[in-house]
Amino acid sequence: MLNLCSADWQPVFVDFFNGETRTDAYLELNDMGEVPTLEAKNVTLTQSGVILDYLADAFEQFDANSVPEHREVLRWILFDNNKLTGSIAPLRFMREFTDQGENEVTAFLHARAAAALKILDTRVAKSDFIVGEEPTIADISLCGYLFWPEETGIDMNDYPAVTAWLERIQALSGWEHPYELMPGHPRENG
Amino acid sequence: MLNLCSADWQPVFVDFFNGETRTDAYLELNDMGEVPTLEAKNVTLTQSGVILDYLADAFEQFDANSVPEHREVLRWILFDNNKLTGSIAPLRFMREFTDQGENEVTAFLHARAAAALKILDTRVAKSDFIVGEEPTIADISLCGYLFWPEETGIDMNDYPAVTAWLERIQALSGWEHPYELMPGHPRENG
Repeated sequence: MLNLCSADWQPVFVDFFNGETRTDAYLELNDMGEVPTLEAKNVTLTQSGVILDYLADAFEQFDANSVPEHREVLRWILFDNNKLTGSIAPLRFMREFTDQGENEVTAFLHARAAAALKILDTRVAKSDFIVGEEPTIADISLCGYLFWPEETGIDMNDYPAVTAWLERIQALSGWEHPYELMPGHPRENG
Repeated sequence: MLNLCSADWQPVFVDFFNGETRTDAYLELNDMGEVPTLEAKNVTLTQSGVILDYLADAFEQFDANSVPEHREVLRWILFDNNKLTGSIAPLRFMREFTDQGENEVTAFLHARAAAALKILDTRVAKSDFIVGEEPTIADISLCGYLFWPEETGIDMNDYPAVTAWLERIQALSGWEHPYELMPGHPRENG
């Protein structure tokens, strides 16, 4: 989102895998012990949906254009947190960052992710983006974890409309792959 | 929320367990195939967070009083969807509505729910409600599944501040137990 808005920003490395998000200093920033945290001029924000809403307002980009559209954007951001990224984030974590491999829990998460992806596929088959023909923060929320199929083990060929939608997002000015924007990420470290 | 706002409303039975939410007729109402759906005078809304936001605005109750408070409310509703109800809803479903009993997946969900409840416990130990001394829709979002401990198997004694906060919510005018508001619920049927 920051890149797509041509914001003046820089990433700050958080040593998640050595427990930094559970230190007192980090919990002071975010009592939920999660990343990301946005530190802007006058405000510190957490929860990606709140950050996206703030940035859409601040940059007047990727915003909803009416009250019904705003509700639709929020609706898909909630769906993302609950069902899509809500399943794929722990799936990626277990597969990529633990030694457990596939097991009963990843099978459960795969099934939940597949159900959510099918709903998303139906949606983005109907219009270029989630809420009509222009991208909003709903698209940006939903797409994040879908650029790591090799880490989640999800076969994106099962979701052709999602694949085409991701290509439309990648074509937006300023887009870069998430890992390009996160120096010090686990795959970089080896 | 409808009861707490003294709204003129009635529940409509949805035959979830016989697949009604996946019928074409229901998907026309909600393409995410989920409950709840609110059918109001001029608008049909889904996703509980969107519904709560609409009702807070319509009834001018349980609303945030400023932009920072509004962000804080949204932040906790997102946390709820992602981490708290996001774990407890499937945990309840698996334990209560399937024959699987406790297994590796419910153990995973118990651990996620416990982490989220610990964060909530820390929060509501600091003030009467999530965002200060007055209840908002953040409280209403977060509390929903916590009134079914016998179905989720969560020992609420582990979360004394949450227990005290739930008592404050139960003391609000108009509060009724979720099952009292849902005729035809599974436990009633047998």
